[in-house]
Amino acid sequence: MNSETSPHRYTVAVIGGTGPQGKGLGYRFARHGHDIVLGSRAAEKAEAVAAEVTERLASVEGAGTARGAANADAIAAADVVLLAVPYDGHDELVASLAAGLAGKTVISCVNPLAFDKRGAHGQVINGGEGSAAESAAEIAPDATVVGAFHNVAAPALWGEDDFLDEDVIVVGDSAEGKQVAIDLAASVTGRPGIDGGKLRLARVLEPFTAVLISINRKYKTHSGIRVTGV
Amino acid sequence: MNSETSPHRYTVAVIGGTGPQGKGLGYRFARHGHDIVLGSRAAEKAEAVAAEVTERLASVEGAGTARGAANADAIAAADVVLLAVPYDGHDELVASLAAGLAGKTVISCVNPLAFDKRGAHGQVINGGEGSAAESAAEIAPDATVVGAFHNVAAPALWGEDDFLDEDVIVVGDSAEGKQVAIDLAASVTGRPGIDGGKLRLARVLEPFTAVLISINRKYKTHSGIRVTGV
Repeated sequence: MNSETSPHRYTVAVIGGTGPQGKGLGYRFARHGHDIVLGSRAAEKAEAVAAEVTERLASVEGAGTARGAANADAIAAADVVLLAVPYDGHDELVASLAAGLAGKTVISCVNPLAFDKRGAHGQVINGGEGSAAESAAEIAPDATVVGAFHNVAAPALWGEDDFLDEDVIVVGDSAEGKQVAIDLAASVTGRPGIDGGKLRLARVLEPFTAVLISINRKYKTHSGIRVTGV
Repeated sequence: MNSETSPHRYTVAVIGGTGPQGKGLGYRFARHGHDIVLGSRAAEKAEAVAAEVTERLASVEGAGTARGAANADAIAAADVVLLAVPYDGHDELVASLAAGLAGKTVISCVNPLAFDKRGAHGQVINGGEGSAAESAAEIAPDATVVGAFHNVAAPALWGEDDFLDEDVIVVGDSAEGKQVAIDLAASVTGRPGIDGGKLRLARVLEPFTAVLISINRKYKTHSGIRVTGV
């Protein structure tokens, strides 16, 4: 593993591991020495995508391993869980997996967005006093839920660049939980994630993706954010 | 004026011009060749701060002018209005000035934040479907309201650096209105502002300042954001 970018070797279950965000983040984690278990409702689908990731990792020195499993099995095999599922059906899925999530660090990168003719915008959750990450924390109260990786573009994750020129902002109410995401962020950006405060600030990070989508459409690019001054 | 950084010379009324954000942004605009009229409820207070800005501009070649006036007089003298007031009392103030704002480009950098023992967070406006900028647009329907400059730190604005190492994201429903803020952003960052989409995305930009405040506390810095990939 690449000890310069991450001090720990994690086994990360990626729920939604066959979608572009989950697959891309899983690939980045494994490329930098972490082991990933891509999760899906159907194990075979996850195994097929894991094989694709494994093929890309073949030439990467120090890479971790990638395999696929049904969601609950993926979680059972991991110490860290990345929730990379669509917001539609999110609450029900987390509820169905809550027992297995107990005691684990759960990183949510779920973006509850809506689209209409005026473009992308954030869905209103709990009358403006909620977020997907907070919902996960409520539904799986024995997990340590943090929010991170909301704003990284899937095409860049699956692309050729060693690192993405952006920062990962991490929010959460547990310093230990945040540290896991801060460590893992180095696999994506080449530097630790940035502690952005309490979990409720996921209310800002999640819909910020709508701003980046608007920028992408206007400027025909894959935009990201960097935090300056840190 | 510095034609490299802005193609137009604007006269900008800064409502809330005696506060740190308004004074700092006004100073940056004037430093790059725009004329500013700092507005306050009391003209004398605005004039005193304008004198302070003028003193700092004395050695700047090509600087614009700075003067102070009562809010309504400042607006009457300007083609662009920057709303840099606290959110507390914002709606009433905009209502009292609405007649004068008609036909003008109004840039809101107002951040409706709240603070408690868990730190800074965004105030919920209209059940999550509103923002200070959208409120201003509703209260002054004959103005062209855009949102910008939410995330620049006042101490850096008043500091010595030529430009701040960050980007200004501009949102609005009028391309012409956004262009004014995009132009003015160059006075602050050395490059044009970035079109971040429709006005409703001010719901994201305004509370994002709470994330930056959390980062500032944690890392003892003045953080900002840059958009990568543009």
